[in-house]
Amino acid sequence: MINYFNYPEKKNWHEILQRPAQDLSKLEAIVLEVFNAIKTERDRAVFNYTKKFDGVELEDMRVTDEELKEAEKLVDDDLKNAMQVAKANIEKFHVSQKEEVKIIETVGGVKCWRKNLPIEKVGLYIPGGTSPLFSTVLMLGIPAKIANCSEIVLCSPPNKDGKIHPAILYASQLIGITKIFKIGGIQAIGAMAYGTETVPKVFKIFGPGNQYVTAAKQLVYKTGTAIDLPAGPSELLIVGDNMANPGFIAADLLSQAEHGADSQVIFVTWEKELILKVQKKVEQQLKELPRKEIAQKALDNSKFILVKNKEDAIALTNEYAPEHLILAVEDEDFFTDKVQNAGSVFIGNYTPESAGDYASGTNHTLPTNGFAKAYSGVSVESFMKKITFQKITSEGLQTIGPIIEKMAEAEELEAHRRAISIRTRSSFEEI
Amino acid sequence: MINYFNYPEKKNWHEILQRPAQDLSKLEAIVLEVFNAIKTERDRAVFNYTKKFDGVELEDMRVTDEELKEAEKLVDDDLKNAMQVAKANIEKFHVSQKEEVKIIETVGGVKCWRKNLPIEKVGLYIPGGTSPLFSTVLMLGIPAKIANCSEIVLCSPPNKDGKIHPAILYASQLIGITKIFKIGGIQAIGAMAYGTETVPKVFKIFGPGNQYVTAAKQLVYKTGTAIDLPAGPSELLIVGDNMANPGFIAADLLSQAEHGADSQVIFVTWEKELILKVQKKVEQQLKELPRKEIAQKALDNSKFILVKNKEDAIALTNEYAPEHLILAVEDEDFFTDKVQNAGSVFIGNYTPESAGDYASGTNHTLPTNGFAKAYSGVSVESFMKKITFQKITSEGLQTIGPIIEKMAEAEELEAHRRAISIRTRSSFEEI
Repeated sequence: MINYFNYPEKKNWHEILQRPAQDLSKLEAIVLEVFNAIKTERDRAVFNYTKKFDGVELEDMRVTDEELKEAEKLVDDDLKNAMQVAKANIEKFHVSQKEEVKIIETVGGVKCWRKNLPIEKVGLYIPGGTSPLFSTVLMLGIPAKIANCSEIVLCSPPNKDGKIHPAILYASQLIGITKIFKIGGIQAIGAMAYGTETVPKVFKIFGPGNQYVTAAKQLVYKTGTAIDLPAGPSELLIVGDNMANPGFIAADLLSQAEHGADSQVIFVTWEKELILKVQKKVEQQLKELPRKEIAQKALDNSKFILVKNKEDAIALTNEYAPEHLILAVEDEDFFTDKVQNAGSVFIGNYTPESAGDYASGTNHTLPTNGFAKAYSGVSVESFMKKITFQKITSEGLQTIGPIIEKMAEAEELEAHRRAISIRTRSSFEEI
Repeated sequence: MINYFNYPEKKNWHEILQRPAQDLSKLEAIVLEVFNAIKTERDRAVFNYTKKFDGVELEDMRVTDEELKEAEKLVDDDLKNAMQVAKANIEKFHVSQKEEVKIIETVGGVKCWRKNLPIEKVGLYIPGGTSPLFSTVLMLGIPAKIANCSEIVLCSPPNKDGKIHPAILYASQLIGITKIFKIGGIQAIGAMAYGTETVPKVFKIFGPGNQYVTAAKQLVYKTGTAIDLPAGPSELLIVGDNMANPGFIAADLLSQAEHGADSQVIFVTWEKELILKVQKKVEQQLKELPRKEIAQKALDNSKFILVKNKEDAIALTNEYAPEHLILAVEDEDFFTDKVQNAGSVFIGNYTPESAGDYASGTNHTLPTNGFAKAYSGVSVESFMKKITFQKITSEGLQTIGPIIEKMAEAEELEAHRRAISIRTRSSFEEI
């Protein structure tokens, strides 16, 4: 079931580490159809597609206060308490991401600074399906609140009874998100990107989803709505040596594998015997899992790679750029110093990926598919943008004016040059 | 020539402030053709399209050391000096953007932090055309160097003699960029996104360009190469009152108008007489400009908007979200406190946009087309990504373990739960 690679040559790494290609072009026609309908028929189109795709006829797409109250009753106290603790941890880490304004005087009389401001209107998409992903409500909603976005819209598909899972509604309430809509898939992304009578138009859309949601997000990006991250299946790469516990590694690999048949699971080591030990533990533990069919499929594509040494292990890791990276190694500093490309890193035997998925405090919305080479995971900054400011005194402009004039002249932009000379070569009153 | 709006009603602002729609879908076929050729024929395809689109047959697409030396001789000392001063200012402001690592202990035994790392390989595109945009080399190259990107590739189209403008080459040398290629347009974006025998594949592409470059950047984004910003024509909005100098405002509006016929120029005030004064100055100054035909065309689409008061002026500004915003107003604090959406803000009578274009220290690669509602301009962070780290002790996991188990159970992800319980419910040796 597992694919083994023994000391693969460097030139073959790229091929070994290939992810399955995603071709969403076939989905574009249906996405465009839904978007065009939403742009013209707005709410009516959303109701129609909800009936068509989710199989439910809604009277109101808004979640009412009564439904929120009902959800609060349905969620048990232990889960409420767990969410509250997770919220506190996530808040503590994310609040530390807020930045102070630093005013820099680049030359005398020339002051420059940046100010962090919230993106005013943001949309969060929470998928439906088998698992109610209330943890994603926390991971997106908490930084949105810390950023102080003035309008936070949340969409999640209704089930056959026209309801959203109570845990999702409770998590939303806990954070203070009140504009919640029972809309799923393409129509949710379209409604938030273009706006309808009921759903406010937002400037940036966050959240995971299936291929249709991914294709829809790609398309709204092209027409000017920002998105959090390009999407791909979830991934875990573990580097382990003899200080690692094979049972722990197996448990972590399986926790990734149960996400979906397309999950990417990779184990890298330079300890030959460890591979067999981990494999044995994987086989044992797999049997006990309720989602073993899904996990099995993911394991069929998993890769156990034996490398020569630590240097090759980190080089291969950086080449792959995993979403999640577990370092169960003796020489932690060697690896943490050299890791270049990864979404989130879990260090040591007692830092499983599950911790970051739920409650350590870091965000679980992370770059997949090798995007960690250029993208960061979601943070408070993802919900903000920076504006630069500059203020120059009359004296400051006398200092840098000639520099600007010379450069503008060389770029053959005479009006740029004159915007300086009109200020530096005559008195205010003469103009 | 100028379009006037007197006290337009709020409900009409959106329409008044519309930008011309960009439809790049017609260009996709040619972009795809070039990309497919580059993916299969690599260097050969680049040479062919350079011959076809730039009308020049190159023997080598690399800029040689001799060419760099020659360029250094061709640039005059005053311009060299100007670039050096500009570089120092841009560096001073951008260096201040580097962030320290903050380790946060979210609960006892649970430590989380973020580390800023360079995007290893980046590509800079510098357009050719009439003006040699060496200032953009500084604006992209300096933050790339501060971020410490290990591979910085620069592409710019060759002229009919197979050369790149000496000012562009000198600016590149000044920063320490040595991988410079004579490639323009779609083939430059494709070569950097997919790599050829000669051009290294990069992870993120920066820089302005015409519609073909914009369409090419949109397409590489879809296949996993990050890009700096979605593109659109350059824009300036000025808010002025009676403390403003009509001649200065006119000069700034014209400096924006000379960029291109599609430049967006807007003047907003609540002082009725000021509109006529500025108009008069614009007419006077326009006559003297070498690029007056271009500026005239941009002015034909320009908007002078009379609003009731300061409150409406800032509300309209935030609705438009200008790339550049000049505040030539008495009550600066009122405006700087309330500005929500803008790329870069220029405060007072002696802070023309030209200053930020070249030498104040701020970056001139900014969000156009209303994208300032969700995007920031280019900064050192644009060349970096953040990795989150977490390290949990055995005791720390005992504390947050039950929380994670409860949440994983509620999300029906049993393997996630077990990755915790295997660590917290048995001793290390038992597993």
